[in-house]
Amino acid sequence: MKIVVDAMGGDHAPDVVIEGAIAAVKEYGVEVVLVGDQARIDALLAKSGFRSEKLTVCPSTEVIEMHDPAATSVRRKRNSSIVVGLKLVRDGKADAFVSAGNTGAAVCAGTLTLGLLPGVERPGIATVMPSLKGIFLIMDVGANIDPKPLHLMQYGIMAELYGREILGMKNPSVGLLNVGEEESKGTEFLKDSFELLSKTHLNYIGNVEGKHLFSGECDIVICDGFVGNVTLKVSESLGEAMQKFLKKHILSNPLGIIGALLLTSSFRKFKKDIDYSEYGGAPLLGVNGVVIIGHGRSNAKAIKNAIRVAKAEVEHGFTEKLVAAIESENVVLSHTEAPDVGQAADQGGARS
Amino acid sequence: MKIVVDAMGGDHAPDVVIEGAIAAVKEYGVEVVLVGDQARIDALLAKSGFRSEKLTVCPSTEVIEMHDPAATSVRRKRNSSIVVGLKLVRDGKADAFVSAGNTGAAVCAGTLTLGLLPGVERPGIATVMPSLKGIFLIMDVGANIDPKPLHLMQYGIMAELYGREILGMKNPSVGLLNVGEEESKGTEFLKDSFELLSKTHLNYIGNVEGKHLFSGECDIVICDGFVGNVTLKVSESLGEAMQKFLKKHILSNPLGIIGALLLTSSFRKFKKDIDYSEYGGAPLLGVNGVVIIGHGRSNAKAIKNAIRVAKAEVEHGFTEKLVAAIESENVVLSHTEAPDVGQAADQGGARS
Repeated sequence: MKIVVDAMGGDHAPDVVIEGAIAAVKEYGVEVVLVGDQARIDALLAKSGFRSEKLTVCPSTEVIEMHDPAATSVRRKRNSSIVVGLKLVRDGKADAFVSAGNTGAAVCAGTLTLGLLPGVERPGIATVMPSLKGIFLIMDVGANIDPKPLHLMQYGIMAELYGREILGMKNPSVGLLNVGEEESKGTEFLKDSFELLSKTHLNYIGNVEGKHLFSGECDIVICDGFVGNVTLKVSESLGEAMQKFLKKHILSNPLGIIGALLLTSSFRKFKKDIDYSEYGGAPLLGVNGVVIIGHGRSNAKAIKNAIRVAKAEVEHGFTEKLVAAIESENVVLSHTEAPDVGQAADQGGARS
Repeated sequence: MKIVVDAMGGDHAPDVVIEGAIAAVKEYGVEVVLVGDQARIDALLAKSGFRSEKLTVCPSTEVIEMHDPAATSVRRKRNSSIVVGLKLVRDGKADAFVSAGNTGAAVCAGTLTLGLLPGVERPGIATVMPSLKGIFLIMDVGANIDPKPLHLMQYGIMAELYGREILGMKNPSVGLLNVGEEESKGTEFLKDSFELLSKTHLNYIGNVEGKHLFSGECDIVICDGFVGNVTLKVSESLGEAMQKFLKKHILSNPLGIIGALLLTSSFRKFKKDIDYSEYGGAPLLGVNGVVIIGHGRSNAKAIKNAIRVAKAEVEHGFTEKLVAAIESENVVLSHTEAPDVGQAADQGGARS
């Protein structure tokens, strides 16, 4: 199995990307192709002292920076690590693509280069988050900020399959993020999404509220990419703020240092509970190929885990199963209400 | 000054409401009118042993329950504590209304009973949240889940004035919650809202992301009521989950109890930092009168603080200042682009 990794993507690229790639080759035995600035990659590989025929380099001369506009950069920077890397997957020279770079560009290039799966109207990003009962998966967290109800229904199908196949969830519950639990809650868009989701074969539990996420009452949370993106970033921000609040009060307490020392292992486990780098990258679901998007701030461990997730998707034949799941639900739906899947060609507008 | 308190509103009503009202009379010297089931209130007052001519009861025979549908209940339960209490304010018999009951019903009854301020199209709820730099105010958190850009602009004006007058913020920065900082980010709705906000006299800093909220980079965060509601509930849920994560790891650590004992004062300050009951209730801004909405889970301290906030609004002549602020900005805007304020009469649809 060969996994392409965008060596130039992420706030700490290429250093941590190469470190994470080396760890993945050692630990998982996968082949990794690092795409990016050959001279810089070679220098870092030499410095690491690690050599393996499983770790190769594919040169690219351009970089889509973290704050570059997504669609424009993908069109203009044809020789960027993201575009070059995705073409290796499209052309069958590799099995999956991993990037911690510009998310919007990865979504846009992934959609344009690989195309969408049959019947899928829009791709979406699913992200694992911690809950008191383990983890939950939330989709979409930013690929599609102005979706239609059918997109949300398809996110439900794709995320649920991901939960079962890759995360090992048993009959995961699927909920629609809303401002109340009653079916009548929310905008017309949400009411229509509710109706479509309730027609699927999913274990659909209806509306869930923001307060239910971290208590773990729902395994798969479906929402539009705007709300999902805000939820993800608010959660990360609050998680960090709470650690800082706590640290401040511990340091201002004369007995605080001693107490904190006694609690070292507790604090370490606590940090691990809420550490996103544990969960690997976020899959871009709906494109015709395996694409994993890492957090911009990814460290080497996050890169390694993103490669692990990519490997799992390939091993499970996840893309093929996704095609079957989408087709099966679309067939069911077409007996009740034909989903508007004819517009799948209009896919260039994926936003983030 | 006379403040009406919905004795029947909240998960722990009427007990904690009466306890909070007594504390407010003692501490702030305000007159409080408790609206609700006279027999139950009298019994609780007798049990408390507190008697004062400043604490009176106005009987009402119906209760809008926490999960009743908002608009229907307000129309049908004409003798509910929420409707009866708001009529006291409308008829000039009291200066402000406080309820920890059904938020949707309070918004709906507040709008229908008091009417909207001149020029205001939709009311909104503003909520104070903690940040690493102190606090920030977010509006709307659920009164209006499908707003127009003009509503968001008016939320900016109202929340900013609240920040200055009631929260003591100096020249507060106002930001629009979005998925990126660039002006081009977000849906058409957000781009139009961005443009309207940038035409005001506010200290408008443009788009802010979810990750900027708790770091305290923006004093006033403007968003639609759907996103605001999810943000509020996700934050509360995560805050509680993190405390539980930490507790679990402390209890499973042999030295954990000793460490935790040494950190007692640190943990207490930490809990206070993130305790919403410290900040009082959330003002319903845009209606013609002072209305404070408490958290459903309000304890006595939260009720007392909600009464304190109501008192502050009355003392500052906040409603009159709000009218002037809205009029001033609407005049400015009408020179550039006439805001669609003619539809203010169509106000019955406030949702939550």
